[in-house]
Amino acid sequence: MANRTVLVEVSARHVHLAQQDFETLFGKGTEMHVAKKISQPGQFAADEVVTVIGSKGQLRARLVGPARSETQVELAHSDCRAIGVEPALRVSGTLEGTPGVVLEGPQGRLVLRRGVIVAQRHLHIAPEQAHDWGIQHGDIISVRVPGVRAVTFHNVFVRSREAIDALSFMIDVDEANAAQLRGGETGELVQ
Amino acid sequence: MANRTVLVEVSARHVHLAQQDFETLFGKGTEMHVAKKISQPGQFAADEVVTVIGSKGQLRARLVGPARSETQVELAHSDCRAIGVEPALRVSGTLEGTPGVVLEGPQGRLVLRRGVIVAQRHLHIAPEQAHDWGIQHGDIISVRVPGVRAVTFHNVFVRSREAIDALSFMIDVDEANAAQLRGGETGELVQ
Repeated sequence: MANRTVLVEVSARHVHLAQQDFETLFGKGTEMHVAKKISQPGQFAADEVVTVIGSKGQLRARLVGPARSETQVELAHSDCRAIGVEPALRVSGTLEGTPGVVLEGPQGRLVLRRGVIVAQRHLHIAPEQAHDWGIQHGDIISVRVPGVRAVTFHNVFVRSREAIDALSFMIDVDEANAAQLRGGETGELVQ
Repeated sequence: MANRTVLVEVSARHVHLAQQDFETLFGKGTEMHVAKKISQPGQFAADEVVTVIGSKGQLRARLVGPARSETQVELAHSDCRAIGVEPALRVSGTLEGTPGVVLEGPQGRLVLRRGVIVAQRHLHIAPEQAHDWGIQHGDIISVRVPGVRAVTFHNVFVRSREAIDALSFMIDVDEANAAQLRGGETGELVQ
């Protein structure tokens, strides 16, 4: 069996906007600006930040580009509770039945009917490596992380559709706090 | 093997005060008022709330009584990061090397030299039941909780010094958010 260790990466809350929604919030004909490349090839954290407004409060969230076909807001469970949105755990891109929210940018507001998710923790892995490890896209696996708050995360979704996927185990800020991780640690696939 | 299931209980941030510290914050000769009994016999959530002030921010925390020999502030990892205190994971009552903080009450302020902990998750269990389950005070065990964010928490400290301990698996708010628990769920001891 290959050594099945993975790098832990902590995903802060962020928003993927459809181009039309971006223009509603930031102005007609404008485009996102790349602030920093992130681990998944082609994706970037943008300079732009929006306000996410729930029934009880609001918070700021950075955009992640490029534009997507449908706007998706990824919050931590704690964020949802703080601003008054029902947390809906979903694999990214699966927006049926998710709650909406109001987004505000410098040039406008947008009432989303749906699109707020708490991202299901997942493993990004290239198909060839997944094959070596005996797993494939859509599998549910478990990953153990070490430390004083060692945890085995179950129900980890395997994302392995594209050859360019970088190997990383993505958790959110609540999960990082619970396990006392900051990202950069090494986890291990367990049976 | 007995059915080793435990009730999940979520502990919000709170403060245990020494009597002298209580009087510094709330006035000479005053006493805590019981708001609500909590699961461990003899302990209660008090009416009184204090402000916990770190280097970057502050938050409010409820007192838990009765008074203890030394003041102890129990925060979530996320709380520590929010107010600028270095998180120190400890078993309750183990305060060597922990950071301090400033506490403020209606009648005064208190500069704590130490006493801020992130509580190590733990299982309260009566000694007789612990014996039946093959565990004892001081053991480190693992507890698996179910759900869409199923997790196995490792490094769970067994507290079993008093016959009156009520059976409960205590986690904090970060751990509850990570596992999408609210308390009242059932966990299971695993090997």
